[in-house]
Amino acid sequence: MSSPGFPSKLLENAVNEFASLPGIGRKTAFRLVMNLLKRDSGEVERFGESIIRLHREIHYCKICHSISDNEICSICSDDKRDRSIICVVENIQDVMAIENTGQFRGIYHVLGGIISPVDGIGPADLKIDSLEEKVGGGGISEVILALSTTMEGDTTNFYISRRLAKFDVLLTTLARGVAVGDELEYTDEITLGRAISNRSPYHK
Amino acid sequence: MSSPGFPSKLLENAVNEFASLPGIGRKTAFRLVMNLLKRDSGEVERFGESIIRLHREIHYCKICHSISDNEICSICSDDKRDRSIICVVENIQDVMAIENTGQFRGIYHVLGGIISPVDGIGPADLKIDSLEEKVGGGGISEVILALSTTMEGDTTNFYISRRLAKFDVLLTTLARGVAVGDELEYTDEITLGRAISNRSPYHK
Repeated sequence: MSSPGFPSKLLENAVNEFASLPGIGRKTAFRLVMNLLKRDSGEVERFGESIIRLHREIHYCKICHSISDNEICSICSDDKRDRSIICVVENIQDVMAIENTGQFRGIYHVLGGIISPVDGIGPADLKIDSLEEKVGGGGISEVILALSTTMEGDTTNFYISRRLAKFDVLLTTLARGVAVGDELEYTDEITLGRAISNRSPYHK
Repeated sequence: MSSPGFPSKLLENAVNEFASLPGIGRKTAFRLVMNLLKRDSGEVERFGESIIRLHREIHYCKICHSISDNEICSICSDDKRDRSIICVVENIQDVMAIENTGQFRGIYHVLGGIISPVDGIGPADLKIDSLEEKVGGGGISEVILALSTTMEGDTTNFYISRRLAKFDVLLTTLARGVAVGDELEYTDEITLGRAISNRSPYHK
């Protein structure tokens, strides 16, 4: 099936779209589309709509840059959260991972990535300016650098620490409990919870 | 992330839809949705539309029951195909696999499954009535039973052969033998036994 002669252009289009997703090959894409074809039309329309609506209606929170159904996300608009502690994370998956530990009552700042020269991602591609602005605006007592414990994470930590050095704010990182080389997203909740509780001052 | 606190209902819906596909777990679904979120909105709309259109606009060929963009598929409406030879297959994937060999110039009949009591699929669930009608209508010289060489395939072959016994039509099955490129040593005994019984003259 290396060059499948598709009996239908519509089928081929759908297979091509699925095959464009990461980790989905053409055979898998075909299997997924065949599964959709077997379903009720209502179900399939709901599937398609969920994708279209996701892009049309989703917002990025104006304060923390996380995904949200509104202009301000549910965490940033929650009065019970401690707005003086900002937890800096790489992406939305990390927000969800930390939220699941139930150990953090502050707010987040989603960088939207991590400094990675190999992938061509520099500081200007990340939400670092708005972090500096936010901290400069005052009322912030602590910034937790909760990035992955990789080379890129360390580089980003270092860069942010220099940008924030002029402000009187405590910089902390997650406790070394997260194994070096591990992605935050895949760390188990207990380890991640302890790492947040035992966060330590950031040096250098 | 066993019970992820999604920051957005739209995001959660999209992840749930992807996770409903076979072989796609919640983590993978999340990764796929995050990939879609990073794309241009035009691309994402096209993705969603391709799924919705697939279900709304696709046809099943009235003659062979294969998938088609029109009422009659491109194979059944091709004047160059030999309409006196019908190749009976389980599904559309099999049509595509045989078409890719370039060895078959007849037409197809897609059963839409295979008799499998374990899965609750009986003859009534398959397009066997319409096959009988088609063969009964005359003009058919040969019916090739091109089903999988499994217990279910053999059962279905047997059932169809009985339903078509009253017609003056040649029933054939795919040749059974050692696959091209296979080591004899690792070929199973039943296959090898059949390959020896059905040995053919050596050419060149």
